[in-house]
Amino acid sequence: MIGYKFMGKAHTHAYHDVNLFFPETLVPRRMLLCGRDERGVAEAASKLGWERWTTDWKEVVSDPEIDLVDINAPSNVHKEIAIEALRNGKHVLCEKPLAVSLSDAREMLAAAENANVRHMICFNYRFIPAVRLAKQLLDEGRIGEVRQYRGWFLQDWLTDEHAPFVWRLDRSIAGSGAHGDLNAHTVDLARYLIGEIEEVSGISRTFVKYRVEPGHGSGESRQRTVDVDDATSFLAAFSNGAMGTFEASRAAGGRRCSNGFEIHGSKGSLRFDFERMNELELYEGSDDPYVQGYRTIQATESCHPYMEAWWPAGHGLGFEHTFIHAVLELLEAVRTGRECIPNFADGVKCQQILDAVDRSIELRRWVKVEEL
Amino acid sequence: MIGYKFMGKAHTHAYHDVNLFFPETLVPRRMLLCGRDERGVAEAASKLGWERWTTDWKEVVSDPEIDLVDINAPSNVHKEIAIEALRNGKHVLCEKPLAVSLSDAREMLAAAENANVRHMICFNYRFIPAVRLAKQLLDEGRIGEVRQYRGWFLQDWLTDEHAPFVWRLDRSIAGSGAHGDLNAHTVDLARYLIGEIEEVSGISRTFVKYRVEPGHGSGESRQRTVDVDDATSFLAAFSNGAMGTFEASRAAGGRRCSNGFEIHGSKGSLRFDFERMNELELYEGSDDPYVQGYRTIQATESCHPYMEAWWPAGHGLGFEHTFIHAVLELLEAVRTGRECIPNFADGVKCQQILDAVDRSIELRRWVKVEEL
Amino acid sequence: MIGYKFMGKAHTHAYHDVNLFFPETLVPRRMLLCGRDERGVAEAASKLGWERWTTDWKEVVSDPEIDLVDINAPSNVHKEIAIEALRNGKHVLCEKPLAVSLSDAREMLAAAENANVRHMICFNYRFIPAVRLAKQLLDEGRIGEVRQYRGWFLQDWLTDEHAPFVWRLDRSIAGSGAHGDLNAHTVDLARYLIGEIEEVSGISRTFVKYRVEPGHGSGESRQRTVDVDDATSFLAAFSNGAMGTFEASRAAGGRRCSNGFEIHGSKGSLRFDFERMNELELYEGSDDPYVQGYRTIQATESCHPYMEAWWPAGHGLGFEHTFIHAVLELLEAVRTGRECIPNFADGVKCQQILDAVDRSIELRRWVKVEEL
Amino acid sequence: MIGYKFMGKAHTHAYHDVNLFFPETLVPRRMLLCGRDERGVAEAASKLGWERWTTDWKEVVSDPEIDLVDINAPSNVHKEIAIEALRNGKHVLCEKPLAVSLSDAREMLAAAENANVRHMICFNYRFIPAVRLAKQLLDEGRIGEVRQYRGWFLQDWLTDEHAPFVWRLDRSIAGSGAHGDLNAHTVDLARYLIGEIEEVSGISRTFVKYRVEPGHGSGESRQRTVDVDDATSFLAAFSNGAMGTFEASRAAGGRRCSNGFEIHGSKGSLRFDFERMNELELYEGSDDPYVQGYRTIQATESCHPYMEAWWPAGHGLGFEHTFIHAVLELLEAVRTGRECIPNFADGVKCQQILDAVDRSIELRRWVKVEEL
Repeated sequence: MIGYKFMGKAHTHAYHDVNLFFPETLVPRRMLLCGRDERGVAEAASKLGWERWTTDWKEVVSDPEIDLVDINAPSNVHKEIAIEALRNGKHVLCEKPLAVSLSDAREMLAAAENANVRHMICFNYRFIPAVRLAKQLLDEGRIGEVRQYRGWFLQDWLTDEHAPFVWRLDRSIAGSGAHGDLNAHTVDLARYLIGEIEEVSGISRTFVKYRVEPGHGSGESRQRTVDVDDATSFLAAFSNGAMGTFEASRAAGGRRCSNGFEIHGSKGSLRFDFERMNELELYEGSDDPYVQGYRTIQATESCHPYMEAWWPAGHGLGFEHTFIHAVLELLEAVRTGRECIPNFADGVKCQQILDAVDRSIELRRWVKVEEL
Repeated sequence: MIGYKFMGKAHTHAYHDVNLFFPETLVPRRMLLCGRDERGVAEAASKLGWERWTTDWKEVVSDPEIDLVDINAPSNVHKEIAIEALRNGKHVLCEKPLAVSLSDAREMLAAAENANVRHMICFNYRFIPAVRLAKQLLDEGRIGEVRQYRGWFLQDWLTDEHAPFVWRLDRSIAGSGAHGDLNAHTVDLARYLIGEIEEVSGISRTFVKYRVEPGHGSGESRQRTVDVDDATSFLAAFSNGAMGTFEASRAAGGRRCSNGFEIHGSKGSLRFDFERMNELELYEGSDDPYVQGYRTIQATESCHPYMEAWWPAGHGLGFEHTFIHAVLELLEAVRTGRECIPNFADGVKCQQILDAVDRSIELRRWVKVEEL
Repeated sequence: MIGYKFMGKAHTHAYHDVNLFFPETLVPRRMLLCGRDERGVAEAASKLGWERWTTDWKEVVSDPEIDLVDINAPSNVHKEIAIEALRNGKHVLCEKPLAVSLSDAREMLAAAENANVRHMICFNYRFIPAVRLAKQLLDEGRIGEVRQYRGWFLQDWLTDEHAPFVWRLDRSIAGSGAHGDLNAHTVDLARYLIGEIEEVSGISRTFVKYRVEPGHGSGESRQRTVDVDDATSFLAAFSNGAMGTFEASRAAGGRRCSNGFEIHGSKGSLRFDFERMNELELYEGSDDPYVQGYRTIQATESCHPYMEAWWPAGHGLGFEHTFIHAVLELLEAVRTGRECIPNFADGVKCQQILDAVDRSIELRRWVKVEEL
Repeated sequence: MIGYKFMGKAHTHAYHDVNLFFPETLVPRRMLLCGRDERGVAEAASKLGWERWTTDWKEVVSDPEIDLVDINAPSNVHKEIAIEALRNGKHVLCEKPLAVSLSDAREMLAAAENANVRHMICFNYRFIPAVRLAKQLLDEGRIGEVRQYRGWFLQDWLTDEHAPFVWRLDRSIAGSGAHGDLNAHTVDLARYLIGEIEEVSGISRTFVKYRVEPGHGSGESRQRTVDVDDATSFLAAFSNGAMGTFEASRAAGGRRCSNGFEIHGSKGSLRFDFERMNELELYEGSDDPYVQGYRTIQATESCHPYMEAWWPAGHGLGFEHTFIHAVLELLEAVRTGRECIPNFADGVKCQQILDAVDRSIELRRWVKVEEL
């Protein structure tokens, strides 16, 4: 595994826990952890239970004992590592976004398709039981033909203008702001639940244009320009005729981690918000007229996706379970030889849509996704 | 008063009730009710307590005893009636939309400004105590500088494809669909709360393109083409730099009458939905870090706008109170000689924005409101 | 009408509005308003639209032109007025509680039964459309056999220990505290929805034992002893075998006017809170297992009780509508000659249960309602 | 560890995960798993990662290499195992209830106090960050002096009369029904948050008196009598003068696992429900009058109890985290030599209160807890 911070910890925990609840799948072994900072990676390896550590990612991708490479390093190094790993016949799990540009992402997909291995992109929100249940209800036609999609991912850690400058606000490293970070998830959920997006028109804002970067060590603090977006919204036309609105913001005070959607179909509606991740709301037009209304389903029962492996009804799951289920998908794909869902093709498709939004903002008009 | 259906009843009730709760203002007298159908208007006049009735609107606007003309007839006749009433020196209250075209609306505004009378447009949602409280908090700077606005007006009476064809689905009569009917309100609320909109980009859909019109009397039912939108969404750039999303739909299953907004500022956020019209939600970034969160204010206390005239804390108001407060605004303006807020200028401005959205949909690009 | 404060205003408004929405019923005429304070009653009569006023209630009950006497004066004078009115053959609407003692209440009931008139007690919460819908669903057997009832009426105006002493805190005038004021409503709703209560066991507290009474006019403020309860809870056994909990408090911070219930039956559950008076929540065990959950019904549609007379779906009602519907019940009973529901018998039954709770607190044991 | 079903899995996971997030504490080793069924325990040991297994609990409590014994076997064997383990100088973690009778529980406490070891009872709901935050706010005096406590634990798996008979419905094995199972938790939370209970008065019901026990193996199904309660509610007087209501039910349709409380103090209120375990609601009377209201705190930030070890703001935890935090408490107590909280004394106190409720139901009067 390359990377050991927030995502590294979440992935590690997934490998650590997956067999306790899903004993039938493969048993992952935490062999080699890689990071740039020697002290940091050594300490992380010890805390997170990795057998060995290194500061050289090439060691990971070339180790003949290693079958699977998990990439959660910064986005700008995904491409090089992934392609090398794929060339060496490793299965690859890559954090989103797949790459910092669409052409890079496409190169990665081509490499993945040429290698006879499993490739997966870690859109972990697909693996929430309530989201899975939404997908099931959509597939059953329970809300009919989908007409409207409303997706949002709202956070608020950049609301305060005095919040410090961090690397995520530097375009050369992060590639994008709220758009690439958060809309990536909303776009993926929309594709998973509804289908392809054909055209987009967007708007973007950076509310706080300068922030202070604290001095590290003996360095002095300095004012830095924020060159990524704080918030990006866009309209979308889906291939199936549905229309959609999408919003990503890191300055939406009070919305800590509100990744949600509402879907209106010809027979009913669905609503979800990650802040209450164990709940799915359903409206059915077929209910008796005098008792119609949105109902709140606690997606925590054995009849709900994944839940048979967990606890009795009403005992909710948390954030990290999304990664356990994602890792399960990967292990099962490796075990059985089938494709992972979502994989690098989904990563490319998502990137293409995000790029189309960026272009629409630049050109001030609707842009077809296939233009890119 | 011209018109006696849904809005006619709501307006009548407002005239009927206003003095019971606001005894200091002028006392309106329900003199003459006008409608096209003789039997209908006669019956309505009797039920609603109007002294006389007529089928000729010219009788209303020319009656020397009448000071105030209330127009809630179909949109396509607003202009003619209003202009005639204004010429005759009557105060005019007009239902939204002001007219079916921007040029008509502008003519009406010109006529209103030439007449030395009070003119008002009935954007009744401005008069909800919780909305008024939101305005107060914004003016106090309680949530800081506004950055994001999310407005929606979602209904669901056209969700079912078997819902019958009605006149509101005929462009020649209604002028527009969900956009003109519902976005008119969301745009007005946004202007009231945040300020002017400069540019827009929209998307629109008619989900059910044909509906059956039931035969009336001995007539046969027939299939009719729906030539107005079921749903229209748009992105907006505000003059103050804020960005916004707007959505109107009559096919949003489960949302009976959800007219709401969420506003994110540099210090906090506000949230409102008409389906819980007595509540306003507020998030303040200045709360102690470990007790921050959206709070639900029941805007029903004597310290809240309008509420001193009503009941003790926790005793909510309903839909029709918005009209009572609107009528109070009108009567107070007449009594004191000041301008009504909102007035025909607000009606024109709103129309201009809605038209800009329509043009943006046609041209598939962003459109400046001032282009129109 | 005797009394012209909070309740007087609410009742007046009901007489004022009822025919606008229910034109088929009798047309009440506001003839004579009575109050003790000459200036107050004169001003109220003028504001509230009463033809005449008096300070002598005997004038009201003996006026040959008057058919109906509405009593919303303080509880301790209900009995004398009501009995005199009944003797004179007037129909009587009496605010709750019927009287300050059970024996007084029984005398009133006897007088009412001897008179050939309509008698009604103003338990207005029965007349909320969502509560009415709950009753309908219970009668249909939609949630099966009722097993558990949870009733509460929580207010918070006495939370602050510095809130002033008012007459409602003086037992000699008010009779009781939160128990008589608020549990009266919860007990009535329970009887209406579920049936009779057989046995009770209660607990009571006065949290703030002394409060300052502000000096009126030239008087000085003085400390007064609070001799009524701030909060009273009790357990109940229903005749049908169900169990219940009831809570009333005026010191429940944040609960402005939370009068609610949750009912669990063998097939489902119901939930209501007056703070969201247009909503009823329903859980049905017969829903498909993977989509079960409480649903929120907006009881605002034409298929819901009373709502055909009002507005389209999603346009909520407010507090005062409960009185309009109550007055409608009264007028219809007078018109058709049938009994009012609820009437003085319901007032007596409610009082008996409240008294049984008081006795159980005193005796520190369960008390059968029939003991009283 | 003795026992390997639902609780055995939850405890195992806690030992498995605790060091990944709390690396500073002791590192537990899963040495020996015990169960009655040979095949079952062998399979569980393999799946759950225990080194060895046995069917003889004496082997566990006498193994010289073992320092800590975790008892989550059925309640009726807790006493014997715990006392033997304590005699052998093992630290003991025991699931609730401590024992099936108060005298047994007292014996266990005596044994624990004689042994120089750590003893803990697994009231896991104390370890929810939001509950911990509630405790912190109470200790800070943020809601002032506590006056009212409302506790509930509502489940619904016994709503359906056709739900099968299981051992939890057999008094000789389970000791009690909803009361012992669920009120145990609500009572412990109340003691943790508010303090001791002095007197109680209860009511209890078994709604479905007979249920069918499915035939196992070649056995035939048979009708069994349910001799434990489906629901038990009680009133309580706290030592500090506060009053309380408590409710436990397993037949509360739609409430899957609703373990919650609402606390009213002289300055504010708190509200929690396990079904939304990452949220705490707070009302503060000191907020500006026009912006008062319950606020929803997402207790998921680094400033909240335990959360620094977990994820960024808005990324919620799940049910099993309560056990991780409980095990952390135990390991830290062992490491530092301090007492565990909660320990066997808390188990005894809780049992005493539950027994007092049972006695009050039998005697039909209030019972002082110290009577037992």
